[in-house]
Amino acid sequence: MKISPFAPDALPQMPTINGVRFAAIEAGIRYKDRKDLMLAILEPGTSVAGVTTKSKTCAAPVLWCREQLRHGKARALVVNSGNANAFTGIKGADAVSMTADAAAAAVGCAPTEVYIASTGVIGEPMDAAGFTHRLADLAKAAAPENWEDATRAIMTTDTYPKLAKTTVEIAGQTISIGGFAKGSGMIAPDMATMLSFIFTDARIDQALLQTITKNLVDTTFNSITVDSDTSTSDTVLIFATGKSAPETTITDPASATAKAFSDALHAVMLELAQMIVKDGEGLSKFVTIKVTGAEHYKAAHRIAMALANSPILKAAIGGEDPNWGRVVMAVGKAGEEANRDKLKIHFGPHLVAEEGERAPSYREEICAEYMKNREIDITVDVGISDGHATVWTCDLTHDYITINADYRS
Amino acid sequence: MKISPFAPDALPQMPTINGVRFAAIEAGIRYKDRKDLMLAILEPGTSVAGVTTKSKTCAAPVLWCREQLRHGKARALVVNSGNANAFTGIKGADAVSMTADAAAAAVGCAPTEVYIASTGVIGEPMDAAGFTHRLADLAKAAAPENWEDATRAIMTTDTYPKLAKTTVEIAGQTISIGGFAKGSGMIAPDMATMLSFIFTDARIDQALLQTITKNLVDTTFNSITVDSDTSTSDTVLIFATGKSAPETTITDPASATAKAFSDALHAVMLELAQMIVKDGEGLSKFVTIKVTGAEHYKAAHRIAMALANSPILKAAIGGEDPNWGRVVMAVGKAGEEANRDKLKIHFGPHLVAEEGERAPSYREEICAEYMKNREIDITVDVGISDGHATVWTCDLTHDYITINADYRS
Repeated sequence: MKISPFAPDALPQMPTINGVRFAAIEAGIRYKDRKDLMLAILEPGTSVAGVTTKSKTCAAPVLWCREQLRHGKARALVVNSGNANAFTGIKGADAVSMTADAAAAAVGCAPTEVYIASTGVIGEPMDAAGFTHRLADLAKAAAPENWEDATRAIMTTDTYPKLAKTTVEIAGQTISIGGFAKGSGMIAPDMATMLSFIFTDARIDQALLQTITKNLVDTTFNSITVDSDTSTSDTVLIFATGKSAPETTITDPASATAKAFSDALHAVMLELAQMIVKDGEGLSKFVTIKVTGAEHYKAAHRIAMALANSPILKAAIGGEDPNWGRVVMAVGKAGEEANRDKLKIHFGPHLVAEEGERAPSYREEICAEYMKNREIDITVDVGISDGHATVWTCDLTHDYITINADYRS
Repeated sequence: MKISPFAPDALPQMPTINGVRFAAIEAGIRYKDRKDLMLAILEPGTSVAGVTTKSKTCAAPVLWCREQLRHGKARALVVNSGNANAFTGIKGADAVSMTADAAAAAVGCAPTEVYIASTGVIGEPMDAAGFTHRLADLAKAAAPENWEDATRAIMTTDTYPKLAKTTVEIAGQTISIGGFAKGSGMIAPDMATMLSFIFTDARIDQALLQTITKNLVDTTFNSITVDSDTSTSDTVLIFATGKSAPETTITDPASATAKAFSDALHAVMLELAQMIVKDGEGLSKFVTIKVTGAEHYKAAHRIAMALANSPILKAAIGGEDPNWGRVVMAVGKAGEEANRDKLKIHFGPHLVAEEGERAPSYREEICAEYMKNREIDITVDVGISDGHATVWTCDLTHDYITINADYRS
């Protein structure tokens, strides 16, 4: 497996988060010689917020999490890779129940306080009995520092572990936020995202945590795409253990502390979302697409996504061809208002087109040189109003085809 | 250039259509050593109907055709390849006017009776003066049998000329319908199609011809996709010279003759649409996707298109992997009602899944063998109601990437 050119040289030094412990093992669910089952144990008092895929064929664990998010209390998280437990009928739901029961017994909590996610092949029956007996050992081994093991255990075609962290000062106290994510292919979270789990010791009202999370998802995980395909299993969960000092309690949505926490959480979510793109299947370039001048935010977002999901534009970017005609095409197909005769396009700092035609200053060789960069910025002003949005994607390469022509068989 | 595996061994013997003559030349617009400019001359009395792209960044010739379709009279058609004359500002509109004037002078008609289409690179200024002086020679050379030359002159990355024909008996007289199309990449006609031009000697009311054409486009050109990208230049025009016998006149939409003509036209449009897919950039397989059991036709169409546009599913098909989990994913992301627990999937004659899970009779090796066919049928019943739709697409291959990573530069 070729490692993404965006893989970091070293993983970040993750913080200990008071009230969170991790463990992972090789359960042999599908992969050989790699960890594929993880458990996170959360101390009593932990709140959870989350969003899940809007797919009409969502996986059994997604339905389970959606149900448990109603009460918002959490004591454990179990995630496996290799099998998505999606499209597995009543047997899939049974596998989830069995996993919740086993984790509850191992951790000492109610099964409804166990959150579950699965990623991997769709449609393969899930043999939960093949790994649930290992959960007691996992619980014993759980420790606050096992971030990397936990992250590696949820990877599928990911080529590097995606970890992010930050801290925020609230009432003179330091609150930590840390999390991880997996992505790679089938990435176009429509309303939610791929798997991402974030942990914090913040003391925050669960309803407020849910509101903040839902808002932040729009401009982070919902603003990335690798291939326009939305998985059956997309899930983001944020666990808040509440183990920070009492004076840091966050309850008022309008407060400066809520704002500070939200900003910090946004930073972690954005970093994880961008890391998913930076490990998009087969990518060679990371592409930032900014649309301005649209009717409103949603229009700008839809136009930006039309560019980000255009196979023919993404193939040109992979080929280092400054084929801005394909940008014009994608703006046109997005279905949102755009003033053809006001369109302005930049590739990085280079003005390519304005007033609906190629800019007089445009020089093909300068833009061709720019396209050799590993990170490409495309900016389009559509000349209607002041709606703007930014999304992140990658190029479409031979390696994407290779990976997906034989991922399974 | 690798020729599509679906290229026919021989081109069809095209009919002479009373009132239609063609000519084509090498005008050197972009390509070397191949014809890139065609003229069709239509006898006085010819009606035209058509549909054009709904792209918000549509090309100058598209705006021109849309304007002339209001009166529906036609005496000439001029098409060039190599330059799409799209996103070329006021200079693009000027190039269209200059072409119409020159063709009108050559043919002896009003400029507004000249229909124009251009295909090729987007954003490159169009030098109409470079070829308009050749139109008089083209007019002199025009002859009824020059179908192949005309078809070849509108090709870009197409690997074979796409021609189709049929005849229909009306009032004891034989009416001919013949046409051609170009396609290849940037093919996901949303409301219209790629370039396609169809000719008939039928005597038919122009408004009725327009109605029939608009209806037929839905289940033909609007039901194909190569790569989900909608071009700036998609245009279908149907020219009816009215040179058939007076007793064949078609005016009543409810008549048997209108039905017979519509069925015949449908056959030609469907054949051309499927030919476009069969020459999709880099394809190795032709894929028919049929969705049944949807809420209504539009829902079925949208679900079928979600499958047909899924890069990850199309890459699996190219890899001959019966990865039906990706079918489940694409149904889920389409956003239309689907009953996850009633979903039924066939690959060709093989039942893969039913009642929301893998069918007990499913054998991976049998489906893997089926995937080696050059033509693949995928059928999905989504278990809601009786809406159904069929769309046609191709696989996503290394050759698509190769073609689009360096088409232009």
